[in-house]
Amino acid sequence: MTDAAFPTRALAEFVAASDWRDIPPAVRREGVRGLLNYVGCALGGCTDEAIGLAIRVLLPMFGAPQAGIAGRTERCDALNAAFLNAAGANVLEYDDTHLPTVMHPAAPVAPGLFALAEARGASGVELLHAFVLGVEASCRVGNAVMPHHYRRGAHITATCGIFGAAAAAGKLLGLDPVRMTWALGHAATQSAGLVESLGSMSKSIGVGNAARNGLAGALFAEAGFTGAERAIEGKYGFAVVASDTVDLSRITDGLGETWEILSNAYKPYPCGVVLFPVIDACLELRARLAVPVDRIAQVLVRGHPLLRERTDRPDVVDGRSAKVSLQHSVAVALLHGAAGIAQYEDAVVADPAVRALRVKVSAADDPSIPVEAAAVEIRLADGSRLGEYVSTGRGTPGRPMSDLELDAKVGECAGFAAPFVDVPALIAAIRDIETLGDAAHIMRMTVPA
Amino acid sequence: MTDAAFPTRALAEFVAASDWRDIPPAVRREGVRGLLNYVGCALGGCTDEAIGLAIRVLLPMFGAPQAGIAGRTERCDALNAAFLNAAGANVLEYDDTHLPTVMHPAAPVAPGLFALAEARGASGVELLHAFVLGVEASCRVGNAVMPHHYRRGAHITATCGIFGAAAAAGKLLGLDPVRMTWALGHAATQSAGLVESLGSMSKSIGVGNAARNGLAGALFAEAGFTGAERAIEGKYGFAVVASDTVDLSRITDGLGETWEILSNAYKPYPCGVVLFPVIDACLELRARLAVPVDRIAQVLVRGHPLLRERTDRPDVVDGRSAKVSLQHSVAVALLHGAAGIAQYEDAVVADPAVRALRVKVSAADDPSIPVEAAAVEIRLADGSRLGEYVSTGRGTPGRPMSDLELDAKVGECAGFAAPFVDVPALIAAIRDIETLGDAAHIMRMTVPA
Repeated sequence: MTDAAFPTRALAEFVAASDWRDIPPAVRREGVRGLLNYVGCALGGCTDEAIGLAIRVLLPMFGAPQAGIAGRTERCDALNAAFLNAAGANVLEYDDTHLPTVMHPAAPVAPGLFALAEARGASGVELLHAFVLGVEASCRVGNAVMPHHYRRGAHITATCGIFGAAAAAGKLLGLDPVRMTWALGHAATQSAGLVESLGSMSKSIGVGNAARNGLAGALFAEAGFTGAERAIEGKYGFAVVASDTVDLSRITDGLGETWEILSNAYKPYPCGVVLFPVIDACLELRARLAVPVDRIAQVLVRGHPLLRERTDRPDVVDGRSAKVSLQHSVAVALLHGAAGIAQYEDAVVADPAVRALRVKVSAADDPSIPVEAAAVEIRLADGSRLGEYVSTGRGTPGRPMSDLELDAKVGECAGFAAPFVDVPALIAAIRDIETLGDAAHIMRMTVPA
Repeated sequence: MTDAAFPTRALAEFVAASDWRDIPPAVRREGVRGLLNYVGCALGGCTDEAIGLAIRVLLPMFGAPQAGIAGRTERCDALNAAFLNAAGANVLEYDDTHLPTVMHPAAPVAPGLFALAEARGASGVELLHAFVLGVEASCRVGNAVMPHHYRRGAHITATCGIFGAAAAAGKLLGLDPVRMTWALGHAATQSAGLVESLGSMSKSIGVGNAARNGLAGALFAEAGFTGAERAIEGKYGFAVVASDTVDLSRITDGLGETWEILSNAYKPYPCGVVLFPVIDACLELRARLAVPVDRIAQVLVRGHPLLRERTDRPDVVDGRSAKVSLQHSVAVALLHGAAGIAQYEDAVVADPAVRALRVKVSAADDPSIPVEAAAVEIRLADGSRLGEYVSTGRGTPGRPMSDLELDAKVGECAGFAAPFVDVPALIAAIRDIETLGDAAHIMRMTVPA
């Protein structure tokens, strides 16, 4: 009877037993950065149409005002708060990405923790510790069922994020290993989310549920509500239902020694990751361009075939489709000198100047160019050419977002949808979270006075 | 572009366009029986330990008191009411069974309708119509992904029940085909539930969520929250994720002509269906036995090999395991002359007289006996023998529960956990639901004054 034979129990025991002193400094630091990015994204998404509609539907279902919603005045029970904050943090496609699984871990994991901090109380270091462990649980379960799980159609952010949401909340609630195992069992039996839902608002239901139902699983387990003992590896458990390529050793191997959060990246732009080097090149060219943009005759982007396959969309009609459009991303980067949340708004997509530049942009495959690189060439009306090659886009593993860049991103997000937030104070509070006595202080800083 | 190529949309259009006048009398009648069985089961399960724990956890999350919980004084928002009523109606394993899929359709489908009837208003015939359509949607989606879906580990009552919950609620809300399609899309992306969770309380979370999240999907769609257009058949949709044996024609073939609710059966005993003919035989023998039970030396049960495989459990420790124990079921049928909810209580399982009789019961395979039949032979201490062969157990397709038997079952359920209910009046109200102006009247009859 080894740990590897009982991965559900082994993961539960690891999370329950984890001591803050065992968390390496680099992991703590990445946890802080992950929370910072999460709070920024939650603020940026808080006025999105989908979030407004969700609140309208759920308002009569709001229970006791236990917790806040980043950037908003409404208060509600912890479960609805978890749902809405997770949906908001993910809705702009601006949140973190665990590169080995393409999962976005923070949106499912963090909201339940902030809700519990408000409803039950928690110190900053307790919340940070639980967050790091939750990300670890999500990503390890994801690793165990990739690649088939996602390839078949499971939206892994939701389907595996729920395990981290349950584990993290369970840690903050102080669950013993038996109850932590039940919490993971409740997560497993609620695991849901389809890639087919991406591109519609329905995506936000999956991500919101991952946070909500993971937290609910932990609360049920705390109360003694029993769950499956082998929910992941059991004969009729999560793994066999989720994937034809299961490697359960990915859950237990190196637990406490290697940390998945170190493979978590933050987006510099709220769009598809393959576009990052293209946007970097355009911003660089714009900074160097001595000529007005209206003299551009043609823009040719060369990149890995995946770039064209995923993003060659000259005819975009709204912000959602623009987020996966090479043409739109190039146009706004050259025209606005930015590719932030504002550049993917419907109004910008419809702007005649942007439309005029979009039609001049074309893409070509170059299998010699790695996926994290891109080449952009601008041809001016007078026949002259300017070119830029970016070997590693910002926000990719070789060039992670710096702390300063992350701070600026939080500022952009808050400025876009929650301008009342004291951004420097918020950033300072999160960066100092290890010394924060009351973690709920952070949520209070994100809502209107 | 045929309906069959767009089954999600075709199902949505069918439900949205369905006219009550098109529902055949036999389907209407089975709908009434399904509602009667549902209300009975919800009353029978309302004091179960799992339901009590769930209410304790969810109490702070209760929103506006829109809806009741069968058999209980608490009131809560429609979503929590759907969750708790579904969990309660299924917790005793006494609810209906759609025989082709082994799904229990009513527990996910009905609770959202009663909650909406209280929150928004609905006539009896509107509720009955929506219920029939919801059962149809659940079972057709289930047919399309069986047998692999269940065999792999998906708890089909939850995973497919959510489609019916969304469709039924959507019908009551009057969704147009576009919004009904979104509602099914929201259902698809929330579809969850593992067979591994059966045997623990966690099962109730899956069934509760099917009702809750299906209703939520319909409410989100009503508000304009967009969903996938091809959530079931899409490249990364429900069907391909759910099963390796997909037959989408099962969703659309004969829509409006054949009705799945006609394959829905009701249990006469709250235990495994293979035990029904065994219990029937024991009750028959007891009625004929002129000797005291304590003169029984041995009971030999012969049946289809599946009977022994599933239920040969002499050493049961609690009510949950007793529900799949041949030995326990035989013992209580002979001792109590009944195998109802009370006979599967922990206290009865521990009763020395029951334990003494259990050890005298043994099972033998007889491949010549069909699975719906069983032979029981009692050998008395004096060497004499009494035998009974039941060819078709009550509650199986060849011998459905009569209306009188169903009424008695509702009485048993209410008597067990909600003795304050005026059972004859409740039964009359449900049987006359087509003429009931306010469907919420039924829920009000199930709660303490």
